[in-house]
Amino acid sequence: MIGAGNLATQLGLALSENGHTIVQVWSRTLKSAAKLAAKLKCQYTTDISLIYYETDIYIIAVSDQAIEEVLAKRLWGTALVVHTAGSTPMSILYPYCKNFGVFYPFQTFTIAKKVNFCQVPVCIEANSPQNLSVLKELAGSITQNIRLFDSDQRQKIHLAAVFVCNFVNHLYTIGAELLKEDGLDFEILIPLILETASNVMNHSPESSQTGPALRKDKIVMNKHLASLENHPDLKKLYTLVSKRIIKTHK
Amino acid sequence: MIGAGNLATQLGLALSENGHTIVQVWSRTLKSAAKLAAKLKCQYTTDISLIYYETDIYIIAVSDQAIEEVLAKRLWGTALVVHTAGSTPMSILYPYCKNFGVFYPFQTFTIAKKVNFCQVPVCIEANSPQNLSVLKELAGSITQNIRLFDSDQRQKIHLAAVFVCNFVNHLYTIGAELLKEDGLDFEILIPLILETASNVMNHSPESSQTGPALRKDKIVMNKHLASLENHPDLKKLYTLVSKRIIKTHK
Repeated sequence: MIGAGNLATQLGLALSENGHTIVQVWSRTLKSAAKLAAKLKCQYTTDISLIYYETDIYIIAVSDQAIEEVLAKRLWGTALVVHTAGSTPMSILYPYCKNFGVFYPFQTFTIAKKVNFCQVPVCIEANSPQNLSVLKELAGSITQNIRLFDSDQRQKIHLAAVFVCNFVNHLYTIGAELLKEDGLDFEILIPLILETASNVMNHSPESSQTGPALRKDKIVMNKHLASLENHPDLKKLYTLVSKRIIKTHK
Repeated sequence: MIGAGNLATQLGLALSENGHTIVQVWSRTLKSAAKLAAKLKCQYTTDISLIYYETDIYIIAVSDQAIEEVLAKRLWGTALVVHTAGSTPMSILYPYCKNFGVFYPFQTFTIAKKVNFCQVPVCIEANSPQNLSVLKELAGSITQNIRLFDSDQRQKIHLAAVFVCNFVNHLYTIGAELLKEDGLDFEILIPLILETASNVMNHSPESSQTGPALRKDKIVMNKHLASLENHPDLKKLYTLVSKRIIKTHK
């Protein structure tokens, strides 16, 4: 396991709980390497040249900008090498490896929160049918939801994820900030957040839209903008998203 | 029940299922009035002057801008009159009613999707302790989650709701749009959407933040902006929210 961040941690745990042996963890940071190795009960190193040669699969789970740096610092022989990045094409591996692919678990991962992988879509791609079938087997050992996508499709899915996960979570953060200003607790928002998300299971998001922008309720929108007077960035965001809701539903 | 929209429908159903009798529905639109009255097995009218005088509580569940219009068209006597709007202060009722308050169920409602009220926060406010205790009893018959807020607090909560519900749902819509362009199905986003939302139950949204903006990963962010070239509004939104994530987590 090359990397010891959020994804490396959760993927490493899922693989080792499903019968795979992680033989070694590499991380640039000693502390992170040691921490993940302890969880996976395996060896660790911070020296790329000390990564073992005896393994079936190298999983590169580092940030996109570090992938090529890692690749260039070692010979990879004929072992299967995969990266786990949404927005980096598979072709980045071509100059360095003979057998390669992508293994992209499509979920949000933090170090602390254990993820149940069984419904998580794992998006795979490989440079040969043989390697694809190895990745299918690996993915199938942790999830029932295996997807075959090429690098362009994967980037589009990653971009959509930024909107529906990373940006959505930031909107939750904004909700918390606004309530905190008045000494109100975030927890009142929880039933609303869960209902809004669970609506996507049975209804299109277009048909679930509600709120002042959908109703073109200028009185309410102007009140909201007035109370965002001290938050120019939120005012801008409120206007931008409201306009887009009006445009989408006109 | 004055109004026959999303909120009037779901609140009417919840009240009538919990032992209350809705005697009559008023709506400006005959079709909507008839539709809700059929669900609630009660009378209906489109004429404000024909709203019955024999009732304990009038629930005004119309859009914010229509509240005052409805109030002005009839005498309300000593009956308890409540509105259900997040961003309209209770004081709007003062010139028209003797006994009044606010009954604001804090959830997203559509006509079609039945809402389970038992965890929904119902925010109440009244012009007297007696009226407050009537509203407490009414709220307590449909939810375990009763909240006492004044009009300023309620407006702040409503504003937060626009961010964490209405805007979040629009981000889901954007995710669907982006995937549709490449013939990809929205359904792949569902596990990610549900995980992102469920994280708020046990973790602060700040601590659950992930993604390229948090990592300050300019390579990925620039790729995403490049693939939004034909969507100037989404490019603007991507930049605005990414900047705010970076600022919040610096």
